[in-house]
Amino acid sequence: MRDHPARLIAKKRDGGELSAVEIADLVSGVVDGSLGDAQLGAFLMAVCCNGMTEAETTALTLAMRDSGRVLRHEHVPRKKIDKHSTGGVGDKVSLVLAPLVAAAGVAVPMVSGRGLGHTGGTIDKLASLPGYRTDLTIERFQHVLDQCGYAMMAPSVELAPADRRMYATRDVSGTVESIPLITSSILSKKLAEGIDGLVMDVKCGRAAFMKEENDAVALMEGLVATGRSAGIRMAALLTDMDHPLGLALGNSLEVAEVLAALEGQCPDDLRAVTLALGVEMLLLAGAAPDAETAMATLERLWRDGVVRQVFRHNLELQGGDLRVMDDPAVLGCAPVVVPVEAARPGFVADVDPLALGHVVVDLGGGRRQPSDPIDPHVGIVLKKTLGDAVQSGDVLAFVHARTATAAHDAAPRVLAAMPVGDERRRRRSIVLRRMA
Amino acid sequence: MRDHPARLIAKKRDGGELSAVEIADLVSGVVDGSLGDAQLGAFLMAVCCNGMTEAETTALTLAMRDSGRVLRHEHVPRKKIDKHSTGGVGDKVSLVLAPLVAAAGVAVPMVSGRGLGHTGGTIDKLASLPGYRTDLTIERFQHVLDQCGYAMMAPSVELAPADRRMYATRDVSGTVESIPLITSSILSKKLAEGIDGLVMDVKCGRAAFMKEENDAVALMEGLVATGRSAGIRMAALLTDMDHPLGLALGNSLEVAEVLAALEGQCPDDLRAVTLALGVEMLLLAGAAPDAETAMATLERLWRDGVVRQVFRHNLELQGGDLRVMDDPAVLGCAPVVVPVEAARPGFVADVDPLALGHVVVDLGGGRRQPSDPIDPHVGIVLKKTLGDAVQSGDVLAFVHARTATAAHDAAPRVLAAMPVGDERRRRRSIVLRRMA
Repeated sequence: MRDHPARLIAKKRDGGELSAVEIADLVSGVVDGSLGDAQLGAFLMAVCCNGMTEAETTALTLAMRDSGRVLRHEHVPRKKIDKHSTGGVGDKVSLVLAPLVAAAGVAVPMVSGRGLGHTGGTIDKLASLPGYRTDLTIERFQHVLDQCGYAMMAPSVELAPADRRMYATRDVSGTVESIPLITSSILSKKLAEGIDGLVMDVKCGRAAFMKEENDAVALMEGLVATGRSAGIRMAALLTDMDHPLGLALGNSLEVAEVLAALEGQCPDDLRAVTLALGVEMLLLAGAAPDAETAMATLERLWRDGVVRQVFRHNLELQGGDLRVMDDPAVLGCAPVVVPVEAARPGFVADVDPLALGHVVVDLGGGRRQPSDPIDPHVGIVLKKTLGDAVQSGDVLAFVHARTATAAHDAAPRVLAAMPVGDERRRRRSIVLRRMA
Repeated sequence: MRDHPARLIAKKRDGGELSAVEIADLVSGVVDGSLGDAQLGAFLMAVCCNGMTEAETTALTLAMRDSGRVLRHEHVPRKKIDKHSTGGVGDKVSLVLAPLVAAAGVAVPMVSGRGLGHTGGTIDKLASLPGYRTDLTIERFQHVLDQCGYAMMAPSVELAPADRRMYATRDVSGTVESIPLITSSILSKKLAEGIDGLVMDVKCGRAAFMKEENDAVALMEGLVATGRSAGIRMAALLTDMDHPLGLALGNSLEVAEVLAALEGQCPDDLRAVTLALGVEMLLLAGAAPDAETAMATLERLWRDGVVRQVFRHNLELQGGDLRVMDDPAVLGCAPVVVPVEAARPGFVADVDPLALGHVVVDLGGGRRQPSDPIDPHVGIVLKKTLGDAVQSGDVLAFVHARTATAAHDAAPRVLAAMPVGDERRRRRSIVLRRMA
């Protein structure tokens, strides 16, 4: 710290605008430890209370990016485009999207996170693939990217280390809900990946971080503006998280859904979000002249099995058991599977993603604390979804559990999360808004 | 922590009002360590940004008071009244005021602080009295109080320990400037002394914590309201700190000024502030029917040497060298004393307390960091003050230094802090406002 941190913190407290040098000073203190925990907590809270200008958010993002290694993939001639989601229930989009976009000639260097609370994490889903490695060295990550067009990696300590400490601090200190802090946390890590462009999937709804559309739009706008200020191409979609995405919730269950999707058996909502995000990625890469062409290309690659081939190639390069491609049973399964049956006829009136997400956590498929272990096989597979007509005794969902007791506890909660009524409700549009 | 601290912190972040139970929960986390530094920093900043209601400030004050031992002086039948100043340059009021008020039949259990930055601390001044002990046990403190009517003690780890950690955290995290936090810090310690009433000396001006009268009045109002809510009698004076108080700046130099004042040789401003505060203390104690009677009593006790006798008794009880009463040379002196002379005739146009306070710190008479040692003998003695007529070559002040080099560095800074001009300026009223 060249300047005394208390002075800089007080400047933000009093509503002042910090310079890029001052922000870089604070961030270097985050990494070298000269900024103490109390100072960091106070700084984060001052940002929560007083916000940041666009220039400050950009400076914070760049300083956090530059707190560690910033990748450059000069050996990969393709445009590098990534996608990031703000997190939801049943969101396995990345597992289909990355090979889809790679198949269309765009490189996807994807560093993903682990799940926490009711929202799943791509890295946990991949961990349920026998043999699959996400703890790649950066050199191996770049090799895989070069060979098959995409690579999936868990966060490296080398990339944006400032975010690691800031994120952990925010989590305990009541300073999570701040658009500049969320924006810089997401973008610093993505910028360190060495990408040319980023498509944001900002979730909105009951199980999303942003429950209200206004808040989600503000976050989307902040992310797009800051990403552009930081020098990359940006697009964003606002997508619905009032209901789960797809039908499988839980790590290996979601991977099985992905494997089926690659074969063409894909729930409509999952397909729609994946294609819409893929179109944006192709457009950012300049890999398609317009959205219609991009969509046609992606649909063809998916239908013709090219995407499945790219997925298989990545699986091979990252150490996964290739037998899973033809036999999902290789994923293993939970010992107890019990049906949840409708108690009356009618229409499925709701599928509450927050309630279901919490059931998955309680089954052992998610984390309450960052250090919690994950049971890859447990979860819920929906057999009916919003608006479906049901008879008494129809199976609404299957609970996959480690023990009969756990299944017994979960089943009534799943039933309560999927009430049956007389009125036929329809889900709102899955893509609510686009910014590009 | 019964509740998750992040939730309570976020409630304050979002402008909510914390209950007394929630505040007590946070404060217990401060003391038992379950509230981490980042959480404490974030909480303090949320209070800085969003303030606290009167009920919250009172709850915080009481929870901090109750974080340690709360004294009760049941063996002392007199009313227990204390005075607290928000800190200034040359403020040696406590050393005269405590024996003055004790002489009038009021008990003064005074726990004082050390100096930091340009403001001095009573404990440092007392430490320059050979033999004088301020590291009393609580039992000894109570014994001295009982015997001579007042006792002076350095902060005990047993009293309001929550404040110790909160104060240190505020100092580094840019969360000092908050009326609820200042109020609770001051009052929690004072309430733990076991007092019936408190008179606040809120300093206002260039060398005060509160530079603007509006801010100082807000602090004064907050202190009075919270103290009363917490169950003690309160009065407050707003006093001038645009100029130093008295003529001596530096620890043993100020004690020498106090010894002279006890003999009747007291600068007018020091006398005025001391008497005004004493009147309020007597009124709070019910020891005088009105201000005029109180003033007459105090003036008589001072003039008749009773105050000096009480001071001597306290000195004896707290281990001080009694010879100092008749021979101030017992205090010792700095090896180098150099005059600062006026370079032109005219009137002293300013006496800048902040500049002079910094000179004293640089001479070694104050602390930049809490761990810095103090040189008791160095400082400045003013020979002229604001509005005094001077001739070229007249001595404006003496610098008392450890080395010739230090004196040489200090002298031009003292000269610059005491410019001579053509116009005769007068100091504003020393007591600016009263609240009782």
